[in-house]
Amino acid sequence: MRPKIYLIGDSITEESFCDGGWGASLAHHFSRTVDVVLRGYSGYNTRWAVKVLERVIPAAKGSGDGADEPLAVTVFFGANDACLPDRCSAFQHVPLDEYKHNLRSIVSFLKKRWPTTHILLITPPPIDEDARLRHPYVENPLNQPERTNEAAGDYAKACIAVAGECGIPVVDLWTKMQQFSDWKKAYLSDGLHLTQMGNRIVFEEVVKKLKDEGVSLETLHVDLPLISEINPNDPLKAFEP
Amino acid sequence: MRPKIYLIGDSITEESFCDGGWGASLAHHFSRTVDVVLRGYSGYNTRWAVKVLERVIPAAKGSGDGADEPLAVTVFFGANDACLPDRCSAFQHVPLDEYKHNLRSIVSFLKKRWPTTHILLITPPPIDEDARLRHPYVENPLNQPERTNEAAGDYAKACIAVAGECGIPVVDLWTKMQQFSDWKKAYLSDGLHLTQMGNRIVFEEVVKKLKDEGVSLETLHVDLPLISEINPNDPLKAFEP
Repeated sequence: MRPKIYLIGDSITEESFCDGGWGASLAHHFSRTVDVVLRGYSGYNTRWAVKVLERVIPAAKGSGDGADEPLAVTVFFGANDACLPDRCSAFQHVPLDEYKHNLRSIVSFLKKRWPTTHILLITPPPIDEDARLRHPYVENPLNQPERTNEAAGDYAKACIAVAGECGIPVVDLWTKMQQFSDWKKAYLSDGLHLTQMGNRIVFEEVVKKLKDEGVSLETLHVDLPLISEINPNDPLKAFEP
Repeated sequence: MRPKIYLIGDSITEESFCDGGWGASLAHHFSRTVDVVLRGYSGYNTRWAVKVLERVIPAAKGSGDGADEPLAVTVFFGANDACLPDRCSAFQHVPLDEYKHNLRSIVSFLKKRWPTTHILLITPPPIDEDARLRHPYVENPLNQPERTNEAAGDYAKACIAVAGECGIPVVDLWTKMQQFSDWKKAYLSDGLHLTQMGNRIVFEEVVKKLKDEGVSLETLHVDLPLISEINPNDPLKAFEP
């Protein structure tokens, strides 16, 4: 059986198989070695994610020999938790301390269910507040952005802190994206979601972190002969048992 | 457990998660309902596919209650079988009668292993012979195209015949693409593989055929509440058991 990588998160995960999306790019990169499994839930915060984890990751049936454990899982929440409590998307807001607590719960759940799986956290991306005003998701009578870059940064730092406590890797997307001066236009399509270039950053950073964990094309098993390994003068030889 | 759609085929399947690829588009389209599983093997013909089927589709472990059966599977071979026997990619050539025999074997195997799964055949695409000369995959001392559009058409017709015999649906990509006068440039990147627009055709045709079989967003189960179903005044209500 081919190993799996699960992608768990909110809309930035759910939409990761759009044209040039980071999930599709992972599936393409690992096309002969790994199955990429999409578990993105648009609009979800960590409070709701905790409620549904048992349904997102059902207990393995059968042997319990670890055969169902994925190779890795990305956990990418925080963009919705960081909605401000006094703005138009307040129903998605989760206080910072609860966000940390929920992230810890998610990591514990995954570690218990999948003891050998590499867990990789991803921080929320930075926010372009002007673009958030131009692309409202709900009615916004106050005309103030429902997310700010400063708040997203607080949740990003909290995510990094939880990764540190849990001893697991983290992609600091909030910082990484802002290292490029034109990040607002280059990486964000509506001040929150990702352009193709933004998706590219996530893909590259996830591939890098997975490699640090020993998960890469160099170490993964290709389960059937590559065309380059098939002798044109005796092709069937490659398929002998 | 979320249902699966398997994509089995050659490089046009293996590369289907590239930017705008038809596999990625399927995964995006079904992002909350279906897992799309990639089983593309670049360069493979039906002769080699028959040899490896047992390894591509391992027998289900455990209960045998059909829980592991995918909802649907696409079978997309023929582009390599149709290489001419006296040209530079002759080692991939499979005679037309053997191609039909092999396709029938693949369908029988799948029907036996997965009795309830919808099987969908896809014919090879048309060939732009001039472009094949400009983009050789191997040394081509004769300077003649290793594939012709006429031969690809013969394999496409054979594929359609097998689908008819087996009583299963088929996407006639060879004909569909040539209905557009600029098909060579619009749909093919190197005379064989697909551009983003070519990928779009495959995606749309597969979605249409799946819908004919009763597999569509209208009939599939979304396994967790959509954000539109969550009451902003009482979000947790949506997550009660």
